Amino acid sequence: MNTRPQYMANAFDGRVHGRLDPATEKLHARRERVLASSYRLFYSRPVTLTRGEGVLLFDAEGNEYLDAYNNVPAVGHSHPHVQRLVSAQLGMLNTHTRYLTEPVVAYSERLLSLFPQELSRVVYTCTGSEAVDLALRVARYETGAGGVICTSHSYHGTTSAAAEISPSLGPNNDIGSNVVLVDAPDLYREDPATAAEDFADRVRQAIDTLRQRGIGLAAVIVDSVMSSDGVQTRQTGQTGLLAPAADVVREAGGMWIADEVQSGFGRLGSGWWGFTRHGLRPDLVVLGKPMGNGIPIGALVGTEAAMDRFGGDVRYFNTFGGNSVSIAAATAVLDVVEGDQLIAHAREVGQHLITGLRELAGRHPGIGDVRGDGLFVAVEFVADPDLKSPDAATASAVVNELRERRILISSSGRHENVLKIRPPLPFAVRHADRLLTGIDDILSC
Amino acid sequence: MNTRPQYMANAFDGRVHGRLDPATEKLHARRERVLASSYRLFYSRPVTLTRGEGVLLFDAEGNEYLDAYNNVPAVGHSHPHVQRLVSAQLGMLNTHTRYLTEPVVAYSERLLSLFPQELSRVVYTCTGSEAVDLALRVARYETGAGGVICTSHSYHGTTSAAAEISPSLGPNNDIGSNVVLVDAPDLYREDPATAAEDFADRVRQAIDTLRQRGIGLAAVIVDSVMSSDGVQTRQTGQTGLLAPAADVVREAGGMWIADEVQSGFGRLGSGWWGFTRHGLRPDLVVLGKPMGNGIPIGALVGTEAAMDRFGGDVRYFNTFGGNSVSIAAATAVLDVVEGDQLIAHAREVGQHLITGLRELAGRHPGIGDVRGDGLFVAVEFVADPDLKSPDAATASAVVNELRERRILISSSGRHENVLKIRPPLPFAVRHADRLLTGIDDILSC
Repeated sequence: MNTRPQYMANAFDGRVHGRLDPATEKLHARRERVLASSYRLFYSRPVTLTRGEGVLLFDAEGNEYLDAYNNVPAVGHSHPHVQRLVSAQLGMLNTHTRYLTEPVVAYSERLLSLFPQELSRVVYTCTGSEAVDLALRVARYETGAGGVICTSHSYHGTTSAAAEISPSLGPNNDIGSNVVLVDAPDLYREDPATAAEDFADRVRQAIDTLRQRGIGLAAVIVDSVMSSDGVQTRQTGQTGLLAPAADVVREAGGMWIADEVQSGFGRLGSGWWGFTRHGLRPDLVVLGKPMGNGIPIGALVGTEAAMDRFGGDVRYFNTFGGNSVSIAAATAVLDVVEGDQLIAHAREVGQHLITGLRELAGRHPGIGDVRGDGLFVAVEFVADPDLKSPDAATASAVVNELRERRILISSSGRHENVLKIRPPLPFAVRHADRLLTGIDDILSC
Repeated sequence: MNTRPQYMANAFDGRVHGRLDPATEKLHARRERVLASSYRLFYSRPVTLTRGEGVLLFDAEGNEYLDAYNNVPAVGHSHPHVQRLVSAQLGMLNTHTRYLTEPVVAYSERLLSLFPQELSRVVYTCTGSEAVDLALRVARYETGAGGVICTSHSYHGTTSAAAEISPSLGPNNDIGSNVVLVDAPDLYREDPATAAEDFADRVRQAIDTLRQRGIGLAAVIVDSVMSSDGVQTRQTGQTGLLAPAADVVREAGGMWIADEVQSGFGRLGSGWWGFTRHGLRPDLVVLGKPMGNGIPIGALVGTEAAMDRFGGDVRYFNTFGGNSVSIAAATAVLDVVEGDQLIAHAREVGQHLITGLRELAGRHPGIGDVRGDGLFVAVEFVADPDLKSPDAATASAVVNELRERRILISSSGRHENVLKIRPPLPFAVRHADRLLTGIDDILSC
């Protein structure tokens, strides 16, 4: 029996949260007997799901849950176009990239057309973790240096190398000896006028720290929306928040890796990618979660120059990466995001949601900050608005009370005091209103 | 333009192999403009595919190819049962493991029932590489040691940590400083009476080498069929080839990781897993390729003890790992392997194929050895049967001549002189005969 801390916001803990209802208890007990102890469940009362449709999820009793959390089913749960294309492809061909097939080429042309021209090459993986891991391999091979800088509560993935740059995995997850952490900008507590330069200064110091250890700089990797660092973005278009740091990295001979696993594919409501709002030009871009609406696919996009030596010398073959079925799913996602104009939709509904949350903040002083853009929104709870002292207990209570009202979100941030709201993109104004009412009710109790 | 060596058996090289037909040339040129230079194609004349069915593949002109190579579509290309279950699940729910869902639990119970009782816990990933990488994380965390031993031409995956134990990726792929390579048994050149003890001796020496470097032993990882080392297995049931080495590893406090990505799920025709024929009890088992018939899914199976500390302290969450759709695909694969009795089928057809290849070897002295079991078969070419000197040129010529006859296989082994035959499991006697006739014709020219 596991008697150690869970180190995860919003994790179920049977020793703390007590007994479940009989049906849940029974399934949970079966699960515990087969899945390893590394697994965690959400909520003090875990949710059992059997069906999904659009932004709605359902349990075995047919109870409806509003999904305000899951960014993987970007175009909505059980989307018929994804089902249609994937099913058709499964009846036709599913093969790898050592044979020539047309669809992976056509999709690549389409995907790359959404990027600045110099980001002209793509490699497919099955997950964001694999893409991050490959980005590190490429950056280290190309630069001949090992040092990597990331933000101090970032999450970049689960492979050995990706976990070494994922401090949000907790104190038992070792950070690599050639990794230096820098605090992400804190848009709530830092002076916005100097946040960009201050971050660049921290990156500069981190490069010096690496040098003092005799380690050269391979890359800086930053999630363009800094989700695990508490969602550090606002609706201000081209903020340029990370641009000065990117200049520092380039001068030092390192690569900038834009982690777009969470911010990519239109969620932020202002273009396809999060890095463009920072006014920076990444060498490598990592894609994942929403790319195939849940069919595993990730990718590394980069400049030809950034990937040249590694590609020629080492090769890279990911058996399932870019397979015909994953490409069909990814194609369907682009079809729907474009056809249903989901980027503009995310901007509009996000605007409505953020406005509503700000209105709530005016009435509930525990809400210290509301930030985000499009359908990636954060609500930060504080015990004292003047001291801006983090209040994780209220964030956790709101998350779990919302779950009792059948609205699903989670929490985030280094202090676990930030609501993380990032629903499937078809999330509509009426869904936002349902979430707003839920939060208002809970805070009014 | 890439001007460096390819370091891969059976890779297309435009500088060597010359111009392609216009349609292939056009698609290839498009592909080169979007896919990074890390991609490689098979054959001196790459194959363009549009459709697959069972053990057959088709190009755009409707030409039929016999697939005697691809182990991922284990139950056959475009299998209707896989299509049906995956499509139905796509219309129902596709979610992750932080909500409770029944199918992932039911599949886990079913999967684990196929293992010895002590291998009682599973973690899902999306690829064999991710599962290998996780096995290394677990082994290193549990033992508190960093050292890993693998065979000298092994392939275990593409993440940073997996590539460090994959010397078959070529000289530009760095082997980790805490990794020691040992030669796999060579069933053609070594004395079979002492091969097992000799391998155990090499492992013992490798543990000493690690100790001399001040590095403890975390794990030994071996592909149970040693595919990249030239397919080191014969139809002798419980050979026990790796058992003495496993004993050495256990005494030294290390873990045995059985890499079943290639040997698992019945291909060897004698039970579900390759490690059982070695009479050893692994601590961790890695699954991948055939598990979902091409829908990305992999897994790490292990003893509760082996995964306990890591699971409790570190947690592991793979967003797409064990998602509802991948589990549906994996369920369909078990259904078909069991329902169509594909393990017995693999044994019988494999027996027929191996007998036929041995008959060819009697007439063609260039065939030095035929080995394998079930539908994992190797044919080793030698320039001089007495010296057993490897003949990579003939292996390559046979692979490419077979491709001209529309039969797909590839080559393998440290000398690239071994034909690697591992078709989809529905491969029938008539398909084996077509392959045998093809090889005979080529060698008779």
